[in-house]
Amino acid sequence: MRPDPDTARKARLDCRAGMIAPTAGLAPGFTQVNMISLPKDWAWDFLLFGQRNPKPCPVLDVTDPGSHRTTLAPEADLRKDLPLYRVWRDGVLADELPDATEVWAEHADLVTFLIGCSFTFETPLQQAGIEMRHIAQGSNVPMYLTDRPCREAGRLHGQMVVSMRPIPAARVAEAAMISGRFPAVHGAPVHIGAPEGLGIADLSKPDFGDPVQVRDGEVPVFWACGVTPQAAVMASKPPFAITHAPGHMFITDVPDSEWQV
Amino acid sequence: MRPDPDTARKARLDCRAGMIAPTAGLAPGFTQVNMISLPKDWAWDFLLFGQRNPKPCPVLDVTDPGSHRTTLAPEADLRKDLPLYRVWRDGVLADELPDATEVWAEHADLVTFLIGCSFTFETPLQQAGIEMRHIAQGSNVPMYLTDRPCREAGRLHGQMVVSMRPIPAARVAEAAMISGRFPAVHGAPVHIGAPEGLGIADLSKPDFGDPVQVRDGEVPVFWACGVTPQAAVMASKPPFAITHAPGHMFITDVPDSEWQV
Repeated sequence: MRPDPDTARKARLDCRAGMIAPTAGLAPGFTQVNMISLPKDWAWDFLLFGQRNPKPCPVLDVTDPGSHRTTLAPEADLRKDLPLYRVWRDGVLADELPDATEVWAEHADLVTFLIGCSFTFETPLQQAGIEMRHIAQGSNVPMYLTDRPCREAGRLHGQMVVSMRPIPAARVAEAAMISGRFPAVHGAPVHIGAPEGLGIADLSKPDFGDPVQVRDGEVPVFWACGVTPQAAVMASKPPFAITHAPGHMFITDVPDSEWQV
Repeated sequence: MRPDPDTARKARLDCRAGMIAPTAGLAPGFTQVNMISLPKDWAWDFLLFGQRNPKPCPVLDVTDPGSHRTTLAPEADLRKDLPLYRVWRDGVLADELPDATEVWAEHADLVTFLIGCSFTFETPLQQAGIEMRHIAQGSNVPMYLTDRPCREAGRLHGQMVVSMRPIPAARVAEAAMISGRFPAVHGAPVHIGAPEGLGIADLSKPDFGDPVQVRDGEVPVFWACGVTPQAAVMASKPPFAITHAPGHMFITDVPDSEWQV
């Protein structure tokens, strides 16, 4: 059954009206995406960064310079239909805003990249009876900055960010296979168990989002995460960038099933 | 079993030494790729064209401007390790050469794109007992210019090119599923049967490559093809481009299995 397109539009209008909340579980069945807007001068570097790092940065759409429109949701306005934005100046987080219209106007030539998000395969994981702990907890998914470098592209470099979901040991293989059918939205996990192998010292202290409980018999499963571009912004210091706030995604009109292979 | 890396290197050295032949079936198990080199001024348009048209143009690597090296085969020289090159001037085929070193030197800033090729899933198809007619015939795979427009990117536009393999009706679903596991190298077919639906009037007259026999009980199966950039060159007329000759691919060191999801 196709999900009802009204749910995606309504969720975006709620965001536009001022709702600020993580979007996991909202408008189920519709693709949620990460966002980064950069001055055109940085667009080549970023598109190449995505090509060279397809696991954390699968680019699903690129706007024309200066446009706030995307083919992923033709009616939407990228400047105001996300619940929360971050504004970056010289690689430093300068502001967090529910509406980016004003800062967007500072640069006439922003190119916006929309990047696949692991929320896309949460619906099929849940349909398979695998609990998403952060949704059950009503919190944001925990994300960690790893020690694994991305492949550089021009002036852009940085380390990979991962999201983590605790999965019962007997279901881990299934979770890997189900998510692996969605390569355009991070695909299969990059790491299963052994957080120290990613340089993560303490699972209870995520770098982004909220901690979740890992119960006995569960294994932490790590997926490449679309917050990686924000880590690249911090490391590479472009003069200006607008991104979504971690977990506060842009909800598109595209059904999740579109990305399944 | 991992394929023997020497077979890929030897095939490239044969090409360098002057061997001119379609590469289907050569160095089985190693990824073969399409190539296009464009002046840097056109690189953004092309990378965006690939992002917007991932079925025909899955970009697997992008060189630095002026470089003839790729991470897909670090020892190789992209100027001479393909069996046959095409040189394009203002969108017109100007030359076909077994060595592109001289024409490559005309532009100091060429950016080279390496693009997935459907030959990658031919090995698993053959392992499943599905005959590749063009390999059995010792000929080049047939390719057709369709009437299906690609999504434009800057100055680049054009119609999609497809490759065709006749498959027994009872194996078509399996062929779709096996190739579908390789989204980075064109993935599942874009069209099965009914060639007129792609604007193909006569299967015996391919636009590129050689015709193959379609036997009773077989269905023509069409995959998006990495010759699409050449159709875009003809339609969009960049001042200069070097490509591989259709079917005469670059053989990388990357095992085909790398692209399987």
